[in-house]
Amino acid sequence: MTNELDSIFMRQALALARKAAKLNEVPIGAVITCNNVVVAEAFNLKESTQNPIGHAEILAIQEASLLKSNWRLSDCTLYVTLEPCILCVGAIIQARVGRVVYGAKDPKAGAIESVYQIFKDKKLNHTPTIESGVLENESAVLLKSFFKALREMRLSQ
Amino acid sequence: MTNELDSIFMRQALALARKAAKLNEVPIGAVITCNNVVVAEAFNLKESTQNPIGHAEILAIQEASLLKSNWRLSDCTLYVTLEPCILCVGAIIQARVGRVVYGAKDPKAGAIESVYQIFKDKKLNHTPTIESGVLENESAVLLKSFFKALREMRLSQ
Repeated sequence: MTNELDSIFMRQALALARKAAKLNEVPIGAVITCNNVVVAEAFNLKESTQNPIGHAEILAIQEASLLKSNWRLSDCTLYVTLEPCILCVGAIIQARVGRVVYGAKDPKAGAIESVYQIFKDKKLNHTPTIESGVLENESAVLLKSFFKALREMRLSQ
Repeated sequence: MTNELDSIFMRQALALARKAAKLNEVPIGAVITCNNVVVAEAFNLKESTQNPIGHAEILAIQEASLLKSNWRLSDCTLYVTLEPCILCVGAIIQARVGRVVYGAKDPKAGAIESVYQIFKDKKLNHTPTIESGVLENESAVLLKSFFKALREMRLSQ
């Protein structure tokens, strides 16, 4: 169930997504909390770093594990502004993230509810609690503005 | 189609897997080649580094992209001793790896043919060429010996 803290941490993830947009990265931000303390913050850096797996969730998960010196994040919550893709769902499984809260759906690559429903599979050895639609509109508006500006820039070139 | 070079590069990946075993890591190794030149070598380091995504494929993909300063690895082949999991299949998609060659099947977590068949899905924007079963037996024997030794060690404790 969504709570007030979810909105607070998602707002922080949205602020990180805006930082990504300033670097011409698709605006996606992520925050990881453990016992309601922020242990990692990240935003999409795929293009800037030419890292194919430089997604916000991946960077946040690695940062949290580094800080905790532990690959298990079962007592943690991952907040991310957009529904995770297959890669990031795989990372969530590997890190045993306890809870995942996301904003907008991703109709093109979302692997929780939109294109794939990986966590609905009973074959998995780990399934986090899922909360979706938290500040969904803010995230969707941010992404739409980014892609609109990108199209306009390309048309003017 | 498997060729002689596939066996050569898979043998190199198996040698890397043995290095993982020496560190008490599940023995999985990976090599990436571009135009038949090795650009990355890695082995599973999940426990040693407490990195939940420290799989051989992930480390090799990141290394190859770093070397090429390019997240696109469409002209590359990933050799890995064990069938990739969901996370690694996600990374292969993100990096647009052109060809994937693997050894043993993974009946517990394999996401190409065993547990999931993610690349059979027509919804994906990228599907690599797949070759499986290259030096399959060598990889399977290595993994079985590792887990047998681990069980014996735990029983003697």
